[in-house]
Amino acid sequence: MKYADRTESMKASEIRELLKLTEDTDIISFGGGMPSPDAFPIKIIEKIVKKVLEKNGTQALQYGPTEGITPLREALIKRMGKTRGIKCNLNQMIITTGSQQVLDLVPKILINPGDCIAVECPTYVGALTAFNCYQPDYIPVHMDENGMKTDELEEKIKANKAVKFIYTIPIFQNPSGATLSLERKRHLLEIANAYDILILEDEAYSELEYSKVRLPSLKSMDKNEKVIYTHTLSKVLSPGFRLGWLIANEEIARKMAIAKQGVDLCTNMLVQFIAEEYIKSGCIDKQIPKIRKMYKRKRDIMLEALERHFPDGSCWNKPEGGMFIWVSLPEKIDTKEMFLDAIKAKVAYVNGSAFCIDGCSRNCMRLNFSNTDDNKIEEGIRRLAKIIKERLK
Amino acid sequence: MKYADRTESMKASEIRELLKLTEDTDIISFGGGMPSPDAFPIKIIEKIVKKVLEKNGTQALQYGPTEGITPLREALIKRMGKTRGIKCNLNQMIITTGSQQVLDLVPKILINPGDCIAVECPTYVGALTAFNCYQPDYIPVHMDENGMKTDELEEKIKANKAVKFIYTIPIFQNPSGATLSLERKRHLLEIANAYDILILEDEAYSELEYSKVRLPSLKSMDKNEKVIYTHTLSKVLSPGFRLGWLIANEEIARKMAIAKQGVDLCTNMLVQFIAEEYIKSGCIDKQIPKIRKMYKRKRDIMLEALERHFPDGSCWNKPEGGMFIWVSLPEKIDTKEMFLDAIKAKVAYVNGSAFCIDGCSRNCMRLNFSNTDDNKIEEGIRRLAKIIKERLK
Repeated sequence: MKYADRTESMKASEIRELLKLTEDTDIISFGGGMPSPDAFPIKIIEKIVKKVLEKNGTQALQYGPTEGITPLREALIKRMGKTRGIKCNLNQMIITTGSQQVLDLVPKILINPGDCIAVECPTYVGALTAFNCYQPDYIPVHMDENGMKTDELEEKIKANKAVKFIYTIPIFQNPSGATLSLERKRHLLEIANAYDILILEDEAYSELEYSKVRLPSLKSMDKNEKVIYTHTLSKVLSPGFRLGWLIANEEIARKMAIAKQGVDLCTNMLVQFIAEEYIKSGCIDKQIPKIRKMYKRKRDIMLEALERHFPDGSCWNKPEGGMFIWVSLPEKIDTKEMFLDAIKAKVAYVNGSAFCIDGCSRNCMRLNFSNTDDNKIEEGIRRLAKIIKERLK
Repeated sequence: MKYADRTESMKASEIRELLKLTEDTDIISFGGGMPSPDAFPIKIIEKIVKKVLEKNGTQALQYGPTEGITPLREALIKRMGKTRGIKCNLNQMIITTGSQQVLDLVPKILINPGDCIAVECPTYVGALTAFNCYQPDYIPVHMDENGMKTDELEEKIKANKAVKFIYTIPIFQNPSGATLSLERKRHLLEIANAYDILILEDEAYSELEYSKVRLPSLKSMDKNEKVIYTHTLSKVLSPGFRLGWLIANEEIARKMAIAKQGVDLCTNMLVQFIAEEYIKSGCIDKQIPKIRKMYKRKRDIMLEALERHFPDGSCWNKPEGGMFIWVSLPEKIDTKEMFLDAIKAKVAYVNGSAFCIDGCSRNCMRLNFSNTDDNKIEEGIRRLAKIIKERLK
């Protein structure tokens, strides 16, 4: 069978493959990136669905506009103004099949094979999966506790050929948990303007805030339409709904809508109507504090357990939000190589190098705290600490 | 703004643009390709959703496997065996975000720019929209009342460079309504085997059968795994659910699952659970006869109205199923050019050339009968006949 050249670039997500090992067992998994099922407002959704089917049943089951239904787009525009300081009109707002679809559509309209994308290192693996199929070159830009090192970005841009866009998760980043500082946000926009480069800003985790740190979105600071913005309802309603959106300048938004036509015609209509009601009724504003409280508690349990059990020479951040803690172990440890030991010890994580386009972070691991029962977190960390300590002997 | 080369190949669907003219007015539209809202089992869905949320709520709202949930795949495998004679295993069956997603994923894994796809002429425009973004060359193969002219296909394949795949809608085709004869099905498979070409078989309309004509699917006759098969629940449950599936050999199915990971991670989980229950409970088998009866009646009303009003020199097929009648008018008429007259006369259709990669069928039109109230069909046909007759004066 002769496949397209791009098919060579497509790889099954390493994470998904590893995590298959953790299914249907008594493994305590800090591996996946999933919300807690306790965060799903099932009863509320049940009521809303009933109302939607009674009031808008035929529309909710019919084909709809590629751009998404207008009332949901209006509700999201209002919300984005209020929560993220973003001003945009209807022509700039498109509902997508998860924010994952945005990560596919942006390179689809922008990237020829060999074009350059700058990505954080580490970064969200699903973004790399989406980008890879357009056969780009990558510029990895490393992170610290203040997010992407924009000085490094600028140096690399100067030394390299034209970069088409910069992908960033500036708040409670997956996997590092880091948040881009205001100073670096300004620098990043300066770079985008100076070198005429687009930014793809992914704020998937911005609602999961456990201390008052929230900084303005890049998009709200963007005076020259350099930012393509994406967000999702996966963390505050349901990931199974596959509901995200993008905000971009009108020309780019139009191109992405045309590309979306060929991909899936329109996003699921039933859940668009559910989401509209969930936002307009104010249910979302009652649910988010509950989710924050739950995840903050889980984060604190994990941080305490790390403090108690992990060996000297390991360190981790204290994320102000999101779903992940990023742990660096002594250089001697290779977390990928250690993974099977962990599975044997009935605990799972994702190795750091899985998130890194340049293969760095070999001694790091990502721990998810949102999707483990409170009373299992410490035991999982204890198991992990034990195998690490054995390796350090 | 410098876009990717492929973005040049992406065009907004001509049909969608024209049909925007028909919104929010008293126009009788035979233009769209939508099911009747009367075909949606809203009450049944209401009951099923309640059950799903109570029984499988957390799963239905969580991320799920890229390939789709196992119980739905099993239910569809069983159904495909019973209704279409197709045998396959779980590794060959993937749930997709509408069958439209299959039309995107197949060229995604197979087509390099300049590779060749053979398409029926006329064919489904949404397929061309999906294919175009992979920058293929096309071989158009013309149709008659027995579907694609396979002799023409073979001649063109002999004369051309390698064809990567042949796209066919072999039953109640959109837009022509034609059904590929058994003899030609055999010939098509012979060609695929002889020249080592894949077939993409799209049976979206196979359930909408108004006389006993059903022929075996190509996939059921396919001994050498040449056929990638796709089908959808859009015509028998809800198009707004965006639920389709593909059946292919294991290697191709695996490649498509990997490609799907980057595109949307997984298909909407809530509607997968709804669909599983809709099929397993037998509701689908009660609903389909109702839909058939309704659409057959609409087809008959339209056929009678055409007979009564359309001028000599026009002709049309009597489709045994599906949602469309294909009308050829006297050569003098250019249906694209006539479209604005039709809008003025408060009636709409889609011009034939919109479906044709070689711009043929300029004197043809596609009439949709599924989505117009019974009592408006004749009036719409009368309006159309009037403007045609004026042009023929």
